[in-house]
Amino acid sequence: MVKIEDVARAAGVSVATVSRVLNETGRVLPDTEARVREAVARLSYEPNLSARNLRKNESRIILILAPNFSNPYYSNVLAGICDVSRNLGYSTLIYNTYDSDALDESLVESLFQKNRADGMITLACNRDDRWLESYASRYPLVQCSEYVEGAQIPHISVDNRAAARDTVSHLVSLGHRRIGIVTSANRYLSSADRLRGYRDALEEAGIDPDDSLVAYASADYSFASGKQAARTLLEAADPPSAVFCVSDILALGVIAAAGKLGLQVPWDLSVAGFDDVDYTTMFHPYLTTVAVPCYELGRGSMLMLYDHIQQKPGAQSEVYLPHKIVLRESAAQKTDRTRSNTD
Amino acid sequence: MVKIEDVARAAGVSVATVSRVLNETGRVLPDTEARVREAVARLSYEPNLSARNLRKNESRIILILAPNFSNPYYSNVLAGICDVSRNLGYSTLIYNTYDSDALDESLVESLFQKNRADGMITLACNRDDRWLESYASRYPLVQCSEYVEGAQIPHISVDNRAAARDTVSHLVSLGHRRIGIVTSANRYLSSADRLRGYRDALEEAGIDPDDSLVAYASADYSFASGKQAARTLLEAADPPSAVFCVSDILALGVIAAAGKLGLQVPWDLSVAGFDDVDYTTMFHPYLTTVAVPCYELGRGSMLMLYDHIQQKPGAQSEVYLPHKIVLRESAAQKTDRTRSNTD
Repeated sequence: MVKIEDVARAAGVSVATVSRVLNETGRVLPDTEARVREAVARLSYEPNLSARNLRKNESRIILILAPNFSNPYYSNVLAGICDVSRNLGYSTLIYNTYDSDALDESLVESLFQKNRADGMITLACNRDDRWLESYASRYPLVQCSEYVEGAQIPHISVDNRAAARDTVSHLVSLGHRRIGIVTSANRYLSSADRLRGYRDALEEAGIDPDDSLVAYASADYSFASGKQAARTLLEAADPPSAVFCVSDILALGVIAAAGKLGLQVPWDLSVAGFDDVDYTTMFHPYLTTVAVPCYELGRGSMLMLYDHIQQKPGAQSEVYLPHKIVLRESAAQKTDRTRSNTD
Repeated sequence: MVKIEDVARAAGVSVATVSRVLNETGRVLPDTEARVREAVARLSYEPNLSARNLRKNESRIILILAPNFSNPYYSNVLAGICDVSRNLGYSTLIYNTYDSDALDESLVESLFQKNRADGMITLACNRDDRWLESYASRYPLVQCSEYVEGAQIPHISVDNRAAARDTVSHLVSLGHRRIGIVTSANRYLSSADRLRGYRDALEEAGIDPDDSLVAYASADYSFASGKQAARTLLEAADPPSAVFCVSDILALGVIAAAGKLGLQVPWDLSVAGFDDVDYTTMFHPYLTTVAVPCYELGRGSMLMLYDHIQQKPGAQSEVYLPHKIVLRESAAQKTDRTRSNTD
């Protein structure tokens, strides 16, 4: 097998110079570079493979595809990824995908090539982005939080369905039976799974599902859209006494909308969120929510990616971190004062 | 002068193939690539220059150096940068610098080279990072929000000193004379300028400065450190009746600390923030603050960078966007109930 030393000898340059040309990591005079390229071609040296191996040692760049920076969920995940990658000696470059619909194979491929990344982590995708599977078969890729349903792509997340079920079951245990949900009109697996978990809990409690209690906020979980979705639930003839939201920011929107209607949380309405972002305890009522270990998800995704880059035998490909329901002030026992009296 | 067509003819390939080799933007067979490199060398075609020019058209990557993703200030700025860059056909890659102290010339240089970025935007730096000046003389660089004091580096920001002065003058106009400040223990120009503006306003009002009214929170403006800084002010023998904070998150910490001490904002204590991030109006009391046009700063920095990349004559290098004091609930007229009775 032809070695890099053979190329260096044939081109009359040092091994370091060959490496610089193949990895494009330093300035090489044009005619020196041409000599190296020619030697590579003449000797049938496997330049792609070697360039790739050397490159792996040299680039040490991880590309992160992240949507919607204004969501504190993602900032916490990013912090976890960046802390681990820094310790492992990697630079992280974050590309704003705006929303999951902006993801497509040519974008991912071109970002990857342009930045010669050693691997990639996606923080959001639609649950049916099956094209990511062919990509993942060629490059180290880990999906964090959101992943493609049923695909063979390494991912780390929480069990969204179980967490939603547990939260809604908690609302049931507080005496609520008319329970609404504010979910998101996106195609994320988490939104679908949280809705499934909500339905699981109702079924377990023997409560008939009622589509009029399912409200959809915007795809990006905005505060304003949470308020709007809440109004459709709360102004209905037969409003819920408790609302489960698929994100904290939506829950804050629901609390604000309730306030506008003269309803006090939790006395008139119980509200539960999802994520446990920082500001859920900056103001009263402190939010009852699902604590998602965002930072740990970020850390775990980078560690998992590292194992895949290193082709470590037995590298994990499917991890679910434990969630925790955090009981605070926004959800309380249903009493006579609670608005809904229909059940 | 040798043209790319000459190289293509000499190498027996298409112009597109030469371009692919020079820009490394696509797969080219090793021997084809070697032929192109050889032709480039033989004809003394200026590969660096052309590669650079073509690369400028091809790389279209802007590198953004951003600290602390969990601060919503930066997420809004990032959104503005990304929206404009997307419209201009650029990809933005964001590198997490953690804090401004992590910035150094070799990091910036290596990120720039590795990613072949067309330009760079920094969102934070220390006010004395003069080494950035030599960097800016070689590469398109724009500083957004924070910039190096007195340096010749294109920047866009707000007039932090004037904004702080206006805010504190507003507190004076409400009858407060014992006014504290919670600032940050970082080396950002904004922190220094906001402290200067606070002192300007006191001086204008004929109020003697009192160092015991200046409290320092952590360098990263955390909620917890805002609470802690507030306690030193509020538990003092002669506490302030109003506190100006150099960021909203610190102001939220002050409000929380006041609540723990049984003080109601604004009845017992007036609080003003800085930035006007989203969650200042998610809970009561709505925060009186300085509206910084974060998104517009992001937009403006990318437009400015674009002009510098294009070497547009008359490209702007110093822009200050207008700020606005937003009067809400957290700052009110000093009354007898207000805690401080010492003036």
